[in-house]
Amino acid sequence: MEKVALATPSPVGLHRVLEPRGVLPQAAWRLDPDPRLHPDEVRVRVERLNLDAASFRQLSDKHGGDGDAVRAEVLEIVRTRGKMHNPVTGSGGMLVGTVEEVGPENRLGLAKGDRIATLVSLTLTPLVVDDGLAAWDGRGEQVPCDGHAILFGRSIAAHLPDDLPAELALAVMDVCGAPALTHRVVAKYVAQGRPPVVAVIGGAGKSGSLALAAARRAGARRTIGVVPEPAERETLTAAGLADVVALADARDAVALAEAVTAAGGRPADVTIVCVDVPGCEHGAILATADLGTVVFFSMATSFATAALGAEGLAADVTLMIGNGYAAGHADFALDVLRTSPGARAIFESRIAAHLGAIHPPR
Amino acid sequence: MEKVALATPSPVGLHRVLEPRGVLPQAAWRLDPDPRLHPDEVRVRVERLNLDAASFRQLSDKHGGDGDAVRAEVLEIVRTRGKMHNPVTGSGGMLVGTVEEVGPENRLGLAKGDRIATLVSLTLTPLVVDDGLAAWDGRGEQVPCDGHAILFGRSIAAHLPDDLPAELALAVMDVCGAPALTHRVVAKYVAQGRPPVVAVIGGAGKSGSLALAAARRAGARRTIGVVPEPAERETLTAAGLADVVALADARDAVALAEAVTAAGGRPADVTIVCVDVPGCEHGAILATADLGTVVFFSMATSFATAALGAEGLAADVTLMIGNGYAAGHADFALDVLRTSPGARAIFESRIAAHLGAIHPPR
Repeated sequence: MEKVALATPSPVGLHRVLEPRGVLPQAAWRLDPDPRLHPDEVRVRVERLNLDAASFRQLSDKHGGDGDAVRAEVLEIVRTRGKMHNPVTGSGGMLVGTVEEVGPENRLGLAKGDRIATLVSLTLTPLVVDDGLAAWDGRGEQVPCDGHAILFGRSIAAHLPDDLPAELALAVMDVCGAPALTHRVVAKYVAQGRPPVVAVIGGAGKSGSLALAAARRAGARRTIGVVPEPAERETLTAAGLADVVALADARDAVALAEAVTAAGGRPADVTIVCVDVPGCEHGAILATADLGTVVFFSMATSFATAALGAEGLAADVTLMIGNGYAAGHADFALDVLRTSPGARAIFESRIAAHLGAIHPPR
Repeated sequence: MEKVALATPSPVGLHRVLEPRGVLPQAAWRLDPDPRLHPDEVRVRVERLNLDAASFRQLSDKHGGDGDAVRAEVLEIVRTRGKMHNPVTGSGGMLVGTVEEVGPENRLGLAKGDRIATLVSLTLTPLVVDDGLAAWDGRGEQVPCDGHAILFGRSIAAHLPDDLPAELALAVMDVCGAPALTHRVVAKYVAQGRPPVVAVIGGAGKSGSLALAAARRAGARRTIGVVPEPAERETLTAAGLADVVALADARDAVALAEAVTAAGGRPADVTIVCVDVPGCEHGAILATADLGTVVFFSMATSFATAALGAEGLAADVTLMIGNGYAAGHADFALDVLRTSPGARAIFESRIAAHLGAIHPPR
């Protein structure tokens, strides 16, 4: 396949940006998904997209759960933007596929035929869908897909492990920033001789369950998992990932703070927000002790609400934006899953539920 | 004045929330600014509002600089919401005034007649404007105002210092979270034996100039002030607050990263974002070294853009939401101003420019 002459190639993909010019691919409205490669790029044959939970929820809510309408909108987004970048939530997801061609100057360590998952967001990954997403019913985050995607020189991709089903590995990698950063934050407190009380809001979810397991591994004094419903409380209790499981609606700031304080005996030193609904900022701040730390992993977080909320509550806490990347995050998350039967059970039951939605028994 | 029977009083003002019920005042659409006090509240006679820079800019841009239209919209926001909470930017500002009445159970250490500034955002402060903002031309952030505001049990207010003009003290207190947190972050690096290179994006502004002075005081190895225009470069160079002053548009990610790297000899260890325009997230991340820290103080920051941007750039950096509150932040910021003639010069020239806009010479 001949090489295309777009613009000067860049390791972060600037040459793929069509509009507006000069911004990075994630900030762009539209990318060029031309299958022809620059020397440092990689083309992947896509098998499956894993939509970001906040993005899928927004689309599903907008269309009242009508799967056909959700599928049509996803196709329209990819067609007009050259990437699966939800314009409302600003989020994307990730994909799994097989390496189709590797540019001669690429240094990602990939070879043709490798089965990989991308660890950079779909919001900056040039993408073309070839099959109209015909095998997807629009009712789950995991989207069977035939198409192609482009990786840049500085992208991140991970080989799918041999010992785990692809869907399971993909689901873990999608949230692998959360356990890595949680472990790092908790370990810092431990290294200072004050093992923290850690509360994970949304502890029965994917990122939440791995964050709980990572917090315990890092030496947390006490772990609290907060969930919104009795069914999730049973799930999380059975998984054994948290020292205490508490029930509260994270959007109710006062109720959340009271639940965490009751479960921990005092407010949390570290609060990890893993629920993908808006309006959890104040509760998380109110649930956190003076000089504590709040890490927001939810893409539904509002920057201004968090910043002004802490100020308004006179809360002297460190507020962190959950970075989806940390060195070694994929391997770490997979290791947490392998060594935590509780987390694995949560992932497997969530995947089974999605499959159930795709193929309802009847 | 008799006490009003609203709901059970709360130190964070839950009883003043009219809609939606149950959220904290900052998250509320509408507050009750009834002048009658609960036992732990304080009523302030307002002299002046200081609008958040992002909020004023949005309003001014929307109305093409038409001051009458800006004034009308501010009045309409306060009338419908019971607080000056810009619904587009989500930000507010602060106020200065005189204590009019103190509830018998209030513990803020205030007495009738005290001249104070509020250090919590206007986005959560019940407010009534009595004078139609007749003394304001709608063309500057500082708004002469007659009206009343309510402080809650856990609000924060600072006495205006005797040795500084009120307008100057107010402008400093408005951004006092930035120098406090910058100092804390830089001091942590210094304590670990690795004094950081610190870049302040928007170094010639209010929060930026204080952040530069605080970074130097905390022991930064090198301070870089980044500004968008030659005139600001001259101002910041004359102020002597930064070891190097660099010129770059912070919205141009690649240009910003190149400017910081050139000025510092390498990417910054700590990058402080103090510009109130959207789209600076990627540049700040790209300008920061591996394992470095980015602190976002701009209310124009997008949470998702920052989180996904770092992931997309494979940048293993700590991303912090600039908390407007830290213990002792007002006194610290005033002290930085008193001991930094350069920062004081920047503040005084900015205040003079605003006064010039209010009373143009002719």
